[in-house]
Amino acid sequence: MAPHANEVPAAGTIPKKIQAVANATIADDNVWQWIHDVTASSPIQPPVNLGTGFIDHNPPAFLIEAHKTALDSVDNNQYAPVPGSDLLRETIADMYSPLYGRQLDPITEVCVTNGAQEGLLSSVLSFVQAGDEVILLEPVFAMYVYQIKVAGGVIRYVPLRPPQESMTSTVSGNDWTIDLAELEQAITSKTKMIYLNNPHNPLGKVFTVAELTAIGNLCISHGLVLLSDEVYERIVFPQDSGSQPDTPTTHIRVASLSPEIASHTITAVSLGKLFNATGWRAGFVIGCEALMRPVISTHLVLAYSSSGPAQEACAIGLREAERQRWWAVNAADVGARIRRLCRALDTTGLTYVAPASAWFVFVNIDAIKLPENYPYPPIVINEGTRDWKVCYWLVQEFGIASIPGSCFYGPENKRLGERYLRFGACKSDEGLELAAQRLLQLHQHVSKAV
Amino acid sequence: MAPHANEVPAAGTIPKKIQAVANATIADDNVWQWIHDVTASSPIQPPVNLGTGFIDHNPPAFLIEAHKTALDSVDNNQYAPVPGSDLLRETIADMYSPLYGRQLDPITEVCVTNGAQEGLLSSVLSFVQAGDEVILLEPVFAMYVYQIKVAGGVIRYVPLRPPQESMTSTVSGNDWTIDLAELEQAITSKTKMIYLNNPHNPLGKVFTVAELTAIGNLCISHGLVLLSDEVYERIVFPQDSGSQPDTPTTHIRVASLSPEIASHTITAVSLGKLFNATGWRAGFVIGCEALMRPVISTHLVLAYSSSGPAQEACAIGLREAERQRWWAVNAADVGARIRRLCRALDTTGLTYVAPASAWFVFVNIDAIKLPENYPYPPIVINEGTRDWKVCYWLVQEFGIASIPGSCFYGPENKRLGERYLRFGACKSDEGLELAAQRLLQLHQHVSKAV
Ligand SMILES: Cc1ncc(COP(=O)(O)O)c(C=O)c1O
Ligand SMILES: Cc1ncc(COP(=O)(O)O)c(C=O)c1O
Repeated sequence: MAPHANEVPAAGTIPKKIQAVANATIADDNVWQWIHDVTASSPIQPPVNLGTGFIDHNPPAFLIEAHKTALDSVDNNQYAPVPGSDLLRETIADMYSPLYGRQLDPITEVCVTNGAQEGLLSSVLSFVQAGDEVILLEPVFAMYVYQIKVAGGVIRYVPLRPPQESMTSTVSGNDWTIDLAELEQAITSKTKMIYLNNPHNPLGKVFTVAELTAIGNLCISHGLVLLSDEVYERIVFPQDSGSQPDTPTTHIRVASLSPEIASHTITAVSLGKLFNATGWRAGFVIGCEALMRPVISTHLVLAYSSSGPAQEACAIGLREAERQRWWAVNAADVGARIRRLCRALDTTGLTYVAPASAWFVFVNIDAIKLPENYPYPPIVINEGTRDWKVCYWLVQEFGIASIPGSCFYGPENKRLGERYLRFGACKSDEGLELAAQRLLQLHQHVSKAV
Repeated sequence: MAPHANEVPAAGTIPKKIQAVANATIADDNVWQWIHDVTASSPIQPPVNLGTGFIDHNPPAFLIEAHKTALDSVDNNQYAPVPGSDLLRETIADMYSPLYGRQLDPITEVCVTNGAQEGLLSSVLSFVQAGDEVILLEPVFAMYVYQIKVAGGVIRYVPLRPPQESMTSTVSGNDWTIDLAELEQAITSKTKMIYLNNPHNPLGKVFTVAELTAIGNLCISHGLVLLSDEVYERIVFPQDSGSQPDTPTTHIRVASLSPEIASHTITAVSLGKLFNATGWRAGFVIGCEALMRPVISTHLVLAYSSSGPAQEACAIGLREAERQRWWAVNAADVGARIRRLCRALDTTGLTYVAPASAWFVFVNIDAIKLPENYPYPPIVINEGTRDWKVCYWLVQEFGIASIPGSCFYGPENKRLGERYLRFGACKSDEGLELAAQRLLQLHQHVSKAV
């Protein structure tokens, strides 16, 4: 039983065997930590962090009140039912049945999850096994990549394509399009899933009926699960520039397009994004019973259940938000912040992707002239793409943090992404004002004609 | 782009290809749902559900108040830092450093998770890949089995052995022992982890220094991760029967035994269990930096972060509980409920495993005489073990729900488990009173001498 003395590693180290396994499963989350650290130590203080999707205003008062009340009930403080509290699932089914054009069964077709994220991961782990392929559209929310890695799946990237004029002028996120032939070509006998984000982060694109129908039909004909991340579904605003006439101004739910598409689709919604309560980790997934049965089971293993008091609060909050038409109020608020950021960007001479939805602006940085011989740290040099340099320089010289566009691309298409930085607009009035002031100085570093 | 009409499945069905994948990844959670359904429809109403670990009293008032206050701060309501709020991690490090006999680094050695469960799963997924082996001690909390399944790992079961006299008399959970030779034999070149539960559910066993040192040293000599689930660490009570003289009456933390053992160990703690707030889904894992780095990264993918308001409340609650020595108050309360249930079981003539910790009593059902030709439903018959029959019969005839003991065993050792039912004692005074009354009638069905 005694340890073999010569095999005992020093305290604080772990055996090679363990280390090797560990390394193979790490999600590569360097960017976020790096941005955080670099921003904190920027010489320009206070920094304006437009990098993360962290918003700095509170959920509506009615939601917070409902949460406080929920904490007084014994039941809410103990394990909620695995797929969610009855009240919340019924509320969701009542609210979404008309939107999906069919009666949702709250017991078998809804699962409340720890944020949309855990619902998406439960879906991936339910249908993707080692070696199975998943199609992602670029730019892509990096979390999907990590999720598929956990499942042992293989990613096939298909980039959304910007319109030609995006090189020289601001366009709408809606004008980025999917090459359907390219998408179909990416499907192989190993493909299990198309993983869609609609409305889209970081483009703010709201997919059209035609696009969604085509994607849904591909899933039908190839027998694929369509995983539709719709966390920004309530944050869609009217466009004020660059949009084509047929641009949707409301969110289209792919699962509402036909019963056959619905039978292939799992939709994820974020209660955190709906309510500006991202820290509560509340969300849900909806799908037909055959798809949800394994998802609920995987959710049991990933989470057991979601926060009881938060679920009670969200059930009450959803009804109240519907009654007050709070979604429109909130979308208008986010839209105003986005416009404010866009006006500030206009002063720089940079072009960008004007979002029809969500919290972000994808800014084209081709025209930024970086100084010669700027002292970039090794991590930036090693990354090898221009966006990391611009990102670092903006933090150091302007105190503004953003996310390098290449982070939204797989290894093959980094060159498409390095032309962009993602700016988040969900910041306080003071933060946006400070950003606007600082961006005023940026135009000196922007070439007039590209 | 058009779907191939003949491949379109009917709405509500999913293609065979999808179904096949889905089935392969489902956690087998039939028991819990079954118990729930059977209990709800029992002819004896109201049923007393001693099956689940669902407790029916509230967290301490100071914790609830702290949660309400936390909801007023904007920051708490948005995404918390991935590994946990600074305040909570510092509080945990302050509280646990003396218990582990070393200074814990709150930044690198603590990760706040969605319940202990998600911390355990993050640990499993960080170190166990497809084909890797994990050793579990039986009886085992079924969740571990599902977790290893998600990772694609292979389980080697090693049963804890009851003392000889357990066949005829009540013994302490502490008297169940581990055969260390059997444990070492179960280690192969593919083994990556020993997964321990201390204090133990369902035995209520608190492992001794000798046992833990031996297990820890096996991990050192074979280069294994020791995953120590210590969710019941604060719920340890003095024994009143059957214990050996050297029985521990306090919980021993395996990571405190030596620096080398610490460097192989990840410990999981449940804030839900500590505080009777299981529905908040709060917990944490502690380990040396080398182990925690991949765990924090996996946690990012599984959860992103844990509930912000709950974290703030728990940070304040931990300090207050220490100040009030609330842990002892709570352990005494649980101990009193356990004793109450044990006294009720004594009236039946059944023997059981008297727990030194946790919320459960593992009851030996050898002596129960089941009626002939009782009408069991097919699911009970198909299960093929006696415990399911007794469980069903107790629900139908006495309105008392429990969990069949075989659910705590792998396929090979079901025969060891079918001799037991697990009863939960964390019920209201009324629930325990009703259980006691009903159990009074059970002795007619118990053979005097086995
Ligand atoms: C596209 C997208 N999906 C999912 C999420 C996560 O949502 P939740 O906080 O509900 O887990 C985010 C958060 O930023 C997101 O941008
Ligand atoms: C042994 C054991 N580990 C872990 C857990 C889960 O703890 P948490 O609720 O903190 O996820 C339980 C809950 O019953 C348990 O019994």
